Amino acid sequence: MGNRTVAGSSLPLDVRDLHESLGSPVSASMNFLNEVSQDYPDAVSFAAGRPFEGYFDLDDVHRHLDVYRRHLSERFDGDEAKVRRTVLQYGRTKGVIHELVAAHLAVDEGIVVDPEAVVVTVGCQEALYLTLRALRATPEDVLLAVTPSYVGVHGAAQLVDMPLLPVRESAAGVDLAHLTAVVREARAAGRRPRALYLVPDFANPGGVRMSREDRLRTLRAAAELDLLVLEDNPYGLLGDPDGPPTMKALDTDGRVVYLGSFAKTGLPGARVGYVVADQPVTGPRGGAGLLADELAKIKSMTTVNTSPIAQAVIAGKLLENGHSLRAANARERETYRANLRLMLDGLAARFGAGQVPGVSWNTPSGGFFLLLTVPFAASDELLELSAGGHRVLWTPLHHFYADSEPRHVMRLSFSHLLPAEIDEGLDRLAGFVREQAAAAAR
Amino acid sequence: MGNRTVAGSSLPLDVRDLHESLGSPVSASMNFLNEVSQDYPDAVSFAAGRPFEGYFDLDDVHRHLDVYRRHLSERFDGDEAKVRRTVLQYGRTKGVIHELVAAHLAVDEGIVVDPEAVVVTVGCQEALYLTLRALRATPEDVLLAVTPSYVGVHGAAQLVDMPLLPVRESAAGVDLAHLTAVVREARAAGRRPRALYLVPDFANPGGVRMSREDRLRTLRAAAELDLLVLEDNPYGLLGDPDGPPTMKALDTDGRVVYLGSFAKTGLPGARVGYVVADQPVTGPRGGAGLLADELAKIKSMTTVNTSPIAQAVIAGKLLENGHSLRAANARERETYRANLRLMLDGLAARFGAGQVPGVSWNTPSGGFFLLLTVPFAASDELLELSAGGHRVLWTPLHHFYADSEPRHVMRLSFSHLLPAEIDEGLDRLAGFVREQAAAAAR
Repeated sequence: MGNRTVAGSSLPLDVRDLHESLGSPVSASMNFLNEVSQDYPDAVSFAAGRPFEGYFDLDDVHRHLDVYRRHLSERFDGDEAKVRRTVLQYGRTKGVIHELVAAHLAVDEGIVVDPEAVVVTVGCQEALYLTLRALRATPEDVLLAVTPSYVGVHGAAQLVDMPLLPVRESAAGVDLAHLTAVVREARAAGRRPRALYLVPDFANPGGVRMSREDRLRTLRAAAELDLLVLEDNPYGLLGDPDGPPTMKALDTDGRVVYLGSFAKTGLPGARVGYVVADQPVTGPRGGAGLLADELAKIKSMTTVNTSPIAQAVIAGKLLENGHSLRAANARERETYRANLRLMLDGLAARFGAGQVPGVSWNTPSGGFFLLLTVPFAASDELLELSAGGHRVLWTPLHHFYADSEPRHVMRLSFSHLLPAEIDEGLDRLAGFVREQAAAAAR
Repeated sequence: MGNRTVAGSSLPLDVRDLHESLGSPVSASMNFLNEVSQDYPDAVSFAAGRPFEGYFDLDDVHRHLDVYRRHLSERFDGDEAKVRRTVLQYGRTKGVIHELVAAHLAVDEGIVVDPEAVVVTVGCQEALYLTLRALRATPEDVLLAVTPSYVGVHGAAQLVDMPLLPVRESAAGVDLAHLTAVVREARAAGRRPRALYLVPDFANPGGVRMSREDRLRTLRAAAELDLLVLEDNPYGLLGDPDGPPTMKALDTDGRVVYLGSFAKTGLPGARVGYVVADQPVTGPRGGAGLLADELAKIKSMTTVNTSPIAQAVIAGKLLENGHSLRAANARERETYRANLRLMLDGLAARFGAGQVPGVSWNTPSGGFFLLLTVPFAASDELLELSAGGHRVLWTPLHHFYADSEPRHVMRLSFSHLLPAEIDEGLDRLAGFVREQAAAAAR
């Protein structure tokens, strides 16, 4: 205990007496970004990473529930008490729709998995949290993450006191030479790299969709380096159906823990996600279970189970679409594709052919985001100026590095916008960028 | 790092390379109890602590959703897009039904609280987890808990690596002399006791309902010892309406963090709970927020938000009952009271007047549980014997101490049973207890 001050719990509480994640740049990030959004409700937001809500319908919820109710009734041979118990009582920790999730993965992703290896979670964030909580056993355990990366992975790692070592992103997805160097350096320092986190389909924010070959190369590197792979895939199904298979489908030695979300393809308001963790776990008493069973134990101490009512909503949507969320999202896929096109055309019209020196952007083939490089540091202060003076929001890239050092890059989200909003938003953004570029050039 | 072995992540995983909570007696407990229940589906279960499901109705879910939908539509002046967004899109981290929760607390519990101090959670377990995660800042931080205590509090404390120091239960609720001694001893050893966890209304498993005076005495002790109080209240509303006020209602210096559940009074399948955390938090930059805001930051890294669809179900039930869950649970309260009466009468008929020496039981005035003392160690092994040979389940008390040393006490749950099941179950239990008492006497 040494010279550490042991204070009381005196009221008021001091944030320095609370868990250190609360004083971290990640917490500050999320808070700041939320506040800016709230403070400028009439701004066009290229910041929010939300699914398009134009097709939302509350009647769908009722219908999904009814479809699942009939499904259960058939399955339970008309035992309605059992149907009611399944949807309304405390439920199985690993979830009640695991078989439907497994069927969906087979149909849409070519992933064949034992339903017992599925843990249905409160969104994908809980899946990530459970996985990191399980893997972080000692202070030496560290997580590798392709960075810039989703704010939620920084947050979950901090909650379990697990340092996150950034691995450089490349046009191929992961910079494998850098991955190897980071792992070797960490091991030499006595640390234990447990897993590599990545989003192979339309990374947030980088937008890369890895090729089949790069996925295989990355799996081989993970095997050589003896790492688990945490594959997070919220956007894959919304992209070109002829895209490469998931890493989980390519995984031959059970190295990939697959993190799934229904927030973008099901309904965000259900807050249902899942993790496929079919890795065997051995114990001192020799009994081999699955990693999913260990994650379920952690879940029983975190949220006990995922609302079976919420699960029923997703189950109904799966059942109505022959277990295929690709089929269920045909309209949505078209909308996202059209929005991406509008963004790329709109950026070209406003910034193309060197109209504003130092401005460029990437051209992802799907996902919810693209990156705009600008000739000035896109800081939180400039975001506030953009919001207040130009009524347009975007996300400063440094939030995806979990630090506060501004980069010359903004993340632009376009998933939730209508065409007229994109047009208006890009006009405002162009005004802001031109103003700042001119100021930076002076 | 010293001499700690730094192994790889080799497959298969070894449970000893996973978080230590997974190797703990609490995990083993929950697993064992689940397995016994699954292995003997035809046993009468005095083990499951579930609400009565005889009144469950899936049509209620549809009606609750519609009621909340109309409520939102009025509140948003007919802006249906906003209604849909509230229920179906990603939502506010602290929840969308916070005002209804605050209204319910005012109506049913005499607790007046700023809705901004409410965080709606995925069941009460997440509320507990968030609170402990926030309070566990350094390895010196410890939690005090009146013990025997709910398995979930042991579990949540283990997840955040926070030692739980047991404080003895007394007929008055908390043994305050023991509390003082434990706190002093902990501080002398350089530890930092942060809070006292207790269930003042029908403790699980002890059954005590603390008097108003004992609540006040406990609050004074907490103030003198400079502790927060974590008041967990899943059963209070199901007891005698003329019972004492909650500790939160009696709390004059903002010391009580109130943990609420809708699993027993709303619907377990919604998995909605909440925490009221109105303690001010100061920071290095001086900005004073509420503890609720800090808990929301942790929630944003754990589950992001509680399913607004699930929240809508609870909201509808609140709205249909003038915000009163006491009113909504009149039938249920009568059922639990009748079941308790059946248990007490049934135990008296089978074990009263010294029929089996060494058998006695407590007489709680409410709650879901009672404790049966037997003249033998009620171990996990005997539970299996009871399940296999007599088709009756109960919970060995040692699970509430998070250890594996069997006590001479069983917890009997009666909340979810029908009268005939109670009768049959007690017959089976009496057969088992007589057999074991005879064996112990030999």
